Amino acid sequence: MNRLNPHISVDCVIFGFDGRQLKVLLIEREQLSEENKASSSGLLKLPGNLISDTEDLDHSAYRVLKELTGLDNIFLKQFAVFGNPNRLNSSNDLAWLRSTSGLHIERVVTVAYYSLVKINESNPTESLLAKTNWMPVKDLPQLTFDHNLIIAEALEALRKELRTEPIGFELLPKKFSIRQIQSLYEVILGNNLDNRNFRKKVRKLEYFVALPEKEESVNHKPAQLYKFDKKVFTKNRKDAGFVI
Amino acid sequence: MNRLNPHISVDCVIFGFDGRQLKVLLIEREQLSEENKASSSGLLKLPGNLISDTEDLDHSAYRVLKELTGLDNIFLKQFAVFGNPNRLNSSNDLAWLRSTSGLHIERVVTVAYYSLVKINESNPTESLLAKTNWMPVKDLPQLTFDHNLIIAEALEALRKELRTEPIGFELLPKKFSIRQIQSLYEVILGNNLDNRNFRKKVRKLEYFVALPEKEESVNHKPAQLYKFDKKVFTKNRKDAGFVI
Repeated sequence: MNRLNPHISVDCVIFGFDGRQLKVLLIEREQLSEENKASSSGLLKLPGNLISDTEDLDHSAYRVLKELTGLDNIFLKQFAVFGNPNRLNSSNDLAWLRSTSGLHIERVVTVAYYSLVKINESNPTESLLAKTNWMPVKDLPQLTFDHNLIIAEALEALRKELRTEPIGFELLPKKFSIRQIQSLYEVILGNNLDNRNFRKKVRKLEYFVALPEKEESVNHKPAQLYKFDKKVFTKNRKDAGFVI
Repeated sequence: MNRLNPHISVDCVIFGFDGRQLKVLLIEREQLSEENKASSSGLLKLPGNLISDTEDLDHSAYRVLKELTGLDNIFLKQFAVFGNPNRLNSSNDLAWLRSTSGLHIERVVTVAYYSLVKINESNPTESLLAKTNWMPVKDLPQLTFDHNLIIAEALEALRKELRTEPIGFELLPKKFSIRQIQSLYEVILGNNLDNRNFRKKVRKLEYFVALPEKEESVNHKPAQLYKFDKKVFTKNRKDAGFVI
């Protein structure tokens, strides 16, 4: 392991969907022996750490994520940098960072990434290390540092991405019902969508392919399953490369 | 002036359009007396500098841009961070940075911003300081540090933004012809657009409002002038908040 750079860190917001809720992967911050337990409220944090001196930023993000959560081979997207000079103001946060890194730390600017993974599929979340927690984005406790803010901005970035990229499919199983994709879009966008309009819109799309299969083991009428055809999507949108 | 932070900088990519070309605002890097003139090829750079220790990143970007170019009150958008450990590898670049800052510098991560301004309008480019240059994006020389890469990525970010946001209007006069806006889109997207389709598309848009005016003092048949109605655009797109 190379020398850590005490001025720059990476943090990863890993979003997951369990069919009902949008969740985010957090890790437990170890409590220091000298910490005042009553006041050290925020003991959950995003997977993140200082970068090493010889590493590229993206490289650091992948390494840190793997070390802290076990997640590997997922696509991380850099979306913002957080550099408020007061972001380490809580004395507990600062003490914790100094103690765990063994470095003299004053100000840390963090480069933030987000990613989307499927929860409940064998890979990759089965390999998650202990001390990781999937927490609902809508109902987060106070986290350490400015991590609540980072998650809020990651969600905004995700919503924005959804205007042009069909990234929702990253969070769904390969075969899915219209109900499932509608639920996903509703939790990301934070509002209800009209069922009838949604179905009408989806059924018109060439890249949204009906499969000769229905849902299995559900306790309602099994719904038609679909898959997303990325090639058709990419081909179709070439003309729509801009708004005027 | 507060103490500079020797680990983090900001750089600003200021795009401008002169009716024909997409340009970027560069500043001349002062040559150090000990520099080998023959080898110090890249003497142009983006407006940028180290942040100060007590400043937020955005704040630093606005301050540095104003100090170096005179530009003020323009919207800067943070789009990426550049942290390759080798980005200061050129010995001239590193020597220059150490000499001008008076600091011991090893690695600098830079937070990059971009902005769009109108060239040839009295405000804001009239106030530009000496030593600033508008250079065509398509034909840039070798710049200092990794600034060619930063500009290339800013252009990609601009193209992406153009898929969902009508930002092109920031680069045009308030009243413009269809020919002007088509030229602008062509230089940003880097390809020719079909005239007939473009006109047809534009004329269908409710937020693209024909004015009771034509071009003046042009040496071709004066074209109809239009304006962009942002309110109508914002209202119309509410429904189209995502792709599925």
